[in-house]
Amino acid sequence: METAIAEIITIGNEVVIGRTINTNASHIAWRLTSIGFMVKRIIAIRDDEEDIKQTIVDSIKKNPNLIVTSGGLGPTYDDKTLESIGNALNLGLEINQEALAMIKEKYSKKGLPLTEEREKMAYLPHGAMPVRNDEGIAPGVTFEYKGIQFLCTPGVPREMENVLENFILTHLKVKPNVFYHEESFTIKGVGESSLAPVIKEIVKKYNLYVKSHPKGRELLDPELEIQIAGSSPSRDKIVDLVKSCRKELEEKIKEKFGVSPQ
Amino acid sequence: METAIAEIITIGNEVVIGRTINTNASHIAWRLTSIGFMVKRIIAIRDDEEDIKQTIVDSIKKNPNLIVTSGGLGPTYDDKTLESIGNALNLGLEINQEALAMIKEKYSKKGLPLTEEREKMAYLPHGAMPVRNDEGIAPGVTFEYKGIQFLCTPGVPREMENVLENFILTHLKVKPNVFYHEESFTIKGVGESSLAPVIKEIVKKYNLYVKSHPKGRELLDPELEIQIAGSSPSRDKIVDLVKSCRKELEEKIKEKFGVSPQ
Repeated sequence: METAIAEIITIGNEVVIGRTINTNASHIAWRLTSIGFMVKRIIAIRDDEEDIKQTIVDSIKKNPNLIVTSGGLGPTYDDKTLESIGNALNLGLEINQEALAMIKEKYSKKGLPLTEEREKMAYLPHGAMPVRNDEGIAPGVTFEYKGIQFLCTPGVPREMENVLENFILTHLKVKPNVFYHEESFTIKGVGESSLAPVIKEIVKKYNLYVKSHPKGRELLDPELEIQIAGSSPSRDKIVDLVKSCRKELEEKIKEKFGVSPQ
Repeated sequence: METAIAEIITIGNEVVIGRTINTNASHIAWRLTSIGFMVKRIIAIRDDEEDIKQTIVDSIKKNPNLIVTSGGLGPTYDDKTLESIGNALNLGLEINQEALAMIKEKYSKKGLPLTEEREKMAYLPHGAMPVRNDEGIAPGVTFEYKGIQFLCTPGVPREMENVLENFILTHLKVKPNVFYHEESFTIKGVGESSLAPVIKEIVKKYNLYVKSHPKGRELLDPELEIQIAGSSPSRDKIVDLVKSCRKELEEKIKEKFGVSPQ
């Protein structure tokens, strides 16, 4: 079975300036990983039309199955995601009646008129469909281009999360048939460079991702979090494999360094 | 004066899987922004040699002034940053005596021998120099390629931060001669779509980045954080400009919506 590849593009100066930590990217990445996607790249760029266009073009060249963007769907002048994508892919923008109805309904419930800024959120790339946003106004947007499925989500975290769930439920076409499983444990008193040959050996035997994350200081108070992860079409198989690998690694560490996991 | 462009590449499965939030990228981005760089892209990729190579090649094509990487300098089998960069740029890897001395000293102080895994951290791309790491073992690495300055930092946050500071102090060649300044304020009771035309107008007048960040819900309890930011070769000039813009925007908001900043 081929791996389903995803790329994530977050759009917004605040992340690239370093002012805002990119929790949106982590949320999308974890959610896609949990349903079997392999996220290959996360790219954060500015609210700049040329940058967005170039990034979309670059990303399409990588030929992933799914591209998820976050940010830039709102009513303000610098929300340029759809316009830039529309231009980059020669799809242009056109008013989408379904999106317009969604937006109209929300404002009219509050007795607010449909201004130019509000209507802007209903202009989608040609052929795109809106994705319900139960937490805000701007709908998500999905379309296909050269066999790649796109999802554009808003940048406000709770809106992005809601749109992503609605997309997975209703619109997602590539449903990877694999399960991801990971386990981790912590050991104290062993430095990363001392453990390295042990991990190298175990990785040769198991086709899994085994990684030591240093938490303490290598020489002063070494503490390592060991992560073991993998994917398989069979949930039972991958859980068993990760557990066997973990057991063998824990035993080897005890044997060699005399320490047990915490 | 030309803008100095930077790109940031973080390497590590844990970020791309969504398990770890990319605080390293935010730290590097904010630090570079504060000394006048314009960070154009932040890219997070896996510990995969092909992915690292391709990302480095892609990044060089963008021709930034500075490329900063984070992660993958350690002693373990999956720390592949330098090897991948060395291969991507046909520089290869060679033992660097200065780096070796740094590493040797740290282990020997603890009476620990120099194993193969520990020596690995002294193999740098041809022509590279180590950057002091006062918080850990693996030195940072800097070199130039086609006029682009590279800095490779470790992935452990306190080590990355220390190496970045040592680099800025000792090795950084492009010193942008601009100052970045930003201010922000919060207003309640005005929706983003209502404020959009006011911001659009003020942006036309000031050549600044003015952005509304929704914190509440557009229709239920609207709350916006307004960010005003810009750069200039003169610190006084940019501070004055941002302050004038803020004052005018606050007045316009009061006039139009009857609310004052919090």
